[in-house]
Amino acid sequence: MEFPKLKNDLLLRALKGETVERPPVWMMRQAGRFLPDYMVLREKYTFFERCETPHLVSEITTMPIWQVGSDAAILFCDILVVPMAMGYHVDMVPGVGPRLPRTVKTLADAEAIVVPDVDIALGYVMEGIKQTRMDLKGEVPLIGFAGAPWTLLCYMVQGKGSKDFSEAKKFCFEQPEAARVLLQKITDTTIAYMKAQIKAGAQAFQLFDSWAGLLSPDDFMEFSYPYLKQIVAECTVPNILFAKGSWYALEELKATGANGIGLDWAVTPEMARKVLGHDVTIQGNFDPSRLYAPIPKIEQWTKEMIDRFGKDRYIVNLGHGILPDVPVDHARAFINAVKNYS
Amino acid sequence: MEFPKLKNDLLLRALKGETVERPPVWMMRQAGRFLPDYMVLREKYTFFERCETPHLVSEITTMPIWQVGSDAAILFCDILVVPMAMGYHVDMVPGVGPRLPRTVKTLADAEAIVVPDVDIALGYVMEGIKQTRMDLKGEVPLIGFAGAPWTLLCYMVQGKGSKDFSEAKKFCFEQPEAARVLLQKITDTTIAYMKAQIKAGAQAFQLFDSWAGLLSPDDFMEFSYPYLKQIVAECTVPNILFAKGSWYALEELKATGANGIGLDWAVTPEMARKVLGHDVTIQGNFDPSRLYAPIPKIEQWTKEMIDRFGKDRYIVNLGHGILPDVPVDHARAFINAVKNYS
Repeated sequence: MEFPKLKNDLLLRALKGETVERPPVWMMRQAGRFLPDYMVLREKYTFFERCETPHLVSEITTMPIWQVGSDAAILFCDILVVPMAMGYHVDMVPGVGPRLPRTVKTLADAEAIVVPDVDIALGYVMEGIKQTRMDLKGEVPLIGFAGAPWTLLCYMVQGKGSKDFSEAKKFCFEQPEAARVLLQKITDTTIAYMKAQIKAGAQAFQLFDSWAGLLSPDDFMEFSYPYLKQIVAECTVPNILFAKGSWYALEELKATGANGIGLDWAVTPEMARKVLGHDVTIQGNFDPSRLYAPIPKIEQWTKEMIDRFGKDRYIVNLGHGILPDVPVDHARAFINAVKNYS
Repeated sequence: MEFPKLKNDLLLRALKGETVERPPVWMMRQAGRFLPDYMVLREKYTFFERCETPHLVSEITTMPIWQVGSDAAILFCDILVVPMAMGYHVDMVPGVGPRLPRTVKTLADAEAIVVPDVDIALGYVMEGIKQTRMDLKGEVPLIGFAGAPWTLLCYMVQGKGSKDFSEAKKFCFEQPEAARVLLQKITDTTIAYMKAQIKAGAQAFQLFDSWAGLLSPDDFMEFSYPYLKQIVAECTVPNILFAKGSWYALEELKATGANGIGLDWAVTPEMARKVLGHDVTIQGNFDPSRLYAPIPKIEQWTKEMIDRFGKDRYIVNLGHGILPDVPVDHARAFINAVKNYS
């Protein structure tokens, strides 16, 4: 399939370390609930209908490009499609969150998991990517993504969201061998899934370790890091590693060879550059709550953030997903403040 | 009132920087749900009955001393008694958490708050302290505590627990002047409350900034730090400052002059000593989930943790509250591993 030629390649250039006129900008969860048009689709279709229907995937993924002007599109999907493909069903309960009726409890459970053929189990994602690439008309690049193995283990063991994922940790501390088997199976599935996304048309890739920050540095090195490293090593497009809360492992994250390191807002630009240097691209890290502030404040803070990180080897983003009740014009002001940066 | 003479003064000596035979140990939330005898009282009395009845306060506070052998007792109470004393009622909804029917929304709301006479509004806490001091018979010191202003603002504005306290942050970013007025009123109340606790018999004091880690370093310096500093400056007993998630501000926390700095498990002992040095006492930072591990593992990890922090200027604790379903013999193994340290 021949896709339209890419016009705005700022994101890819920033990840490759090239000099740019200004940094690119996008927002985590930009294809989602803060957009009123997304809410209309949310009323009409279930979560998995939206994920599994290519024209809906494309419509949602491209929405923030047309409506707020992001420099990159990120695929509309969910990290929990991977546990589903591995045989662990997920219900998305409105107003409650994900619920897994069956969870991983033992070494035998972990060993029984069969790494799926992702082209069959997750073929709908690849169809969504192809449709989106056509519909984007080359305006901006499309970022594919997956959840990191530790974060997926959290859900596959705990069976739902949690503030501390203590059941998941209990599993790791009581049955470290079972945890290793499960993490490796998730890793193998994720590598195949990432390669299939790239083959289908993803031009960049982000790995989300949303719950990395719940681990101590020692446990992060045991239960998360080795698997992140394997995945990054197999990635053939410009990539970003976002391990939320893992400020303590920035040097190790850089050592994976990732092109970009995503940061949450607990790290100042100065601390980040001191540890990471200027030879890796940093992405982040505007506190999503700061988008509630008056627009002139948003503009001022955004400019200051770019001044502090530096315009090169930098991708402007939030430090976590955009909050659902942020006014669209505040999000647009954030994007425009980057576009007007000088 | 004459209290029994203190026998085990390890905690106070560690906070004063004296050389000790071994570090003292206690556990955050040790007077609580992991103890079956506490669960019996929980069935019989409401949360506020337990907090407001001196003999129940004493029974619950001293329970972990007799049952697992902690080197310090921490008062059984809740940080939300302060908002209550300030006129913001709190319902403790079983299985759900705290709910404030009325919240702070505007500058006018903040200005209308009257700093209470704590001896009247919170007199029951002081009665509980006196009863506990008598019943402890000098076995171990009694730690008083309060929530930090930023953490209390979170509840007074959001009205309930939250994973991101985005309403509370919205309030700060939209109405910074209102936030300052509210934070100062909480601070003034907390200083009076702390002094009253000390006068009643608290021999040490811990300030809990449970939600500090939700703030960026810049916002922490604006909305949390100035108030922590005021409170520490007025404290006349050995004290501990625990700002969970604020690894980025360790130097500033030390600069408050606090005797002890509490840490969560995201910081390694080496990082902590590198930043804080050996001239301040560190408390922490065992991941509470690690208490699920087999007992020999708990013993090994506890010994390694003390080796890494060093036995002096150190208080062994968890990095956050003990989890409700940790077996009592695992908690006891943790305490005993410290007592057997050599």
